[in-house]
Amino acid sequence: MSNIITNTKKKNPLIHCITNYVTVNDVANTILAAGGSPIMADDKKEVEEMQSICQALLINIGTLNERTVESMILAGKKANELNHPVILDPVGAGASSFRTKTIEKLLTEVKISVIKGNISEIKTIALGVGKTNGVDASNDDLIDFNNIDQVINFSKNLSKKTGAIIVITGKIDIITTEFETKITNNGCENMSRITGTGCMLGGVIASYLASNLESKFEAVVQAVSCMGIAGEFSSIEKGNGSFHIGLINEISKMKDKDYEEFNKVEKR
Amino acid sequence: MSNIITNTKKKNPLIHCITNYVTVNDVANTILAAGGSPIMADDKKEVEEMQSICQALLINIGTLNERTVESMILAGKKANELNHPVILDPVGAGASSFRTKTIEKLLTEVKISVIKGNISEIKTIALGVGKTNGVDASNDDLIDFNNIDQVINFSKNLSKKTGAIIVITGKIDIITTEFETKITNNGCENMSRITGTGCMLGGVIASYLASNLESKFEAVVQAVSCMGIAGEFSSIEKGNGSFHIGLINEISKMKDKDYEEFNKVEKR
Amino acid sequence: MSNIITNTKKKNPLIHCITNYVTVNDVANTILAAGGSPIMADDKKEVEEMQSICQALLINIGTLNERTVESMILAGKKANELNHPVILDPVGAGASSFRTKTIEKLLTEVKISVIKGNISEIKTIALGVGKTNGVDASNDDLIDFNNIDQVINFSKNLSKKTGAIIVITGKIDIITTEFETKITNNGCENMSRITGTGCMLGGVIASYLASNLESKFEAVVQAVSCMGIAGEFSSIEKGNGSFHIGLINEISKMKDKDYEEFNKVEKR
Repeated sequence: MSNIITNTKKKNPLIHCITNYVTVNDVANTILAAGGSPIMADDKKEVEEMQSICQALLINIGTLNERTVESMILAGKKANELNHPVILDPVGAGASSFRTKTIEKLLTEVKISVIKGNISEIKTIALGVGKTNGVDASNDDLIDFNNIDQVINFSKNLSKKTGAIIVITGKIDIITTEFETKITNNGCENMSRITGTGCMLGGVIASYLASNLESKFEAVVQAVSCMGIAGEFSSIEKGNGSFHIGLINEISKMKDKDYEEFNKVEKR
Repeated sequence: MSNIITNTKKKNPLIHCITNYVTVNDVANTILAAGGSPIMADDKKEVEEMQSICQALLINIGTLNERTVESMILAGKKANELNHPVILDPVGAGASSFRTKTIEKLLTEVKISVIKGNISEIKTIALGVGKTNGVDASNDDLIDFNNIDQVINFSKNLSKKTGAIIVITGKIDIITTEFETKITNNGCENMSRITGTGCMLGGVIASYLASNLESKFEAVVQAVSCMGIAGEFSSIEKGNGSFHIGLINEISKMKDKDYEEFNKVEKR
Repeated sequence: MSNIITNTKKKNPLIHCITNYVTVNDVANTILAAGGSPIMADDKKEVEEMQSICQALLINIGTLNERTVESMILAGKKANELNHPVILDPVGAGASSFRTKTIEKLLTEVKISVIKGNISEIKTIALGVGKTNGVDASNDDLIDFNNIDQVINFSKNLSKKTGAIIVITGKIDIITTEFETKITNNGCENMSRITGTGCMLGGVIASYLASNLESKFEAVVQAVSCMGIAGEFSSIEKGNGSFHIGLINEISKMKDKDYEEFNKVEKR
């Protein structure tokens, strides 16, 4: 049995997050639930020093502003210098040129370990086009069995170009490198009924990855699948608010054996 | 039966929010619960572009700062150009001259569709005076059956002057234009025991309004009433934390027939 | 029986908070649960005016940035002028020189009433050294029965030097002035499994203290103990998310008689 989750709870990695103010509390609580510890710091005067006491960097560009872009670059370069994994969540890439350009800048100046976005965001980064429905994927971009091979193809190319593991979230999640691809069918539609499930997944990926550097691809796959399992286990019956709290509950209780039993991961 | 709520869930309007960092997560989740989708973006480099992919703008001046005031004006002008409704929540108007002046500036430069505040905030805007208890209404300003006609009167004048629908929240809520007035008696005292119920209402108003442009006044009235109904349905028994989550649960489960059955709306 | 909590609910003090964006919603809701009312304002254009309508100031340096440091100083000086208690939560002191220097500056320019931190943070302030595990205490610094007298000693010296009540949180909490010391054994390990329990405690301290100026030390001791009791009463069974909500529930339901019955406070 894999021990990705157990490792995370044992190693308790410090994750430096420069993230948006909408879902920041959920990201912090999800990192703790996954077994890591979060530090949120975004002033250019301290981000390098903060990075140096951490084990990974999570960059999320929701509520991006000029002040924090500079901090993202500084923290990213320091993370690269220290060989810390850098996880990039390109929230709303394609929705504004400011976001699209910031992503380009980040990819030019910082070596990214994982890029995780919805299909519209990844398409924008990979192909320079991609519709957008704000921070959600455009319906025109949705993945199904007709276009999945095409999506995997441009994701592999993006991975080759950047060296990053590419994660595309949606009804089907795709995790790919230049050389291997897995898809997961975990998750449920309720996850799009609350804000922040994507941001929270960024936190889980960062935590699992930082604790399992010898099996990076597997750590990312399990993070994506476990977030989906948490969504399946959390109940919407009482309403969206309780579903939200339930998600964090489920992440905190997730064990390696749960992943073994409930994952719907396939090799492609 | 009215179909304000059904329309909102069907149309899933994108709401651009420039709001405070205290209750931003609740506002986002409430917009989702009401049937819309939130986008939070506040950098002047992208707010106009973001507005152009949305259907409404929600401006909330809690945790106001100089950087975001400029963004509010830019987004507001773009929204006006595109005929998107602009909802203004003047949190703490009267509590500092910075807030009062920002409101004046917003009202001068942007055409507002709805101004929603507590009695002290609206009084400050309408009459240039109004006590304040921070972000809460001053007891000296509270509405009762002795002064309600006077309050409706200055609200109508404010509506006439600005063209906005005026919403005053409190024990009794007043919704007025130059020509018509409704009051609602929904809601409960518990709603003031947690932060953000006013901000959340802003999100519900924006969602219902953006989806029902042919019946704007009715959409706003129902939003105010439904937020109150959610408060009545959510239980305080376990404590304030559960009440908070319950409110979002109830908004997410609200249906047109619930409004029909439980509204306490009266024409004045 | 003491009436610290009853007083707080009766006086409903306004607490001006300049705090981090990670846990700000929890801080606001905890202040409300404790019986106060929060105002978050951090722009230098309004912090003095906001302070003048409040009864206390809570400064928390998590997610510190250059813009808000200036606001903290301005609000702090105004609070001193008005004899409002100022509570300082030196989150991450020692983790970056920016944070350490900001604390020095705050202590030089503002008279602080309470400094509340974990052992690593207080050690950094008191002794100029102190390891750190980001925003958590370093294991090397933990308090046990072998070093507690030494810790009390440097805390008393820090109190003498600053005039502040010193609170060190951890498995054992220490509250000390130059002349008296109490320790509490309330609380539980689950409290470190979610973000923000320390920040929330800052809100409880500010609320109880602002309402009980004639018994400052006792108000702070009870705030620390009650936060711990809330942690003991909240259940982790469903997971971290429900524990989080439970904490706020318990603070909102806490009564003076609960403190009397469940406190584990000892004089040293």
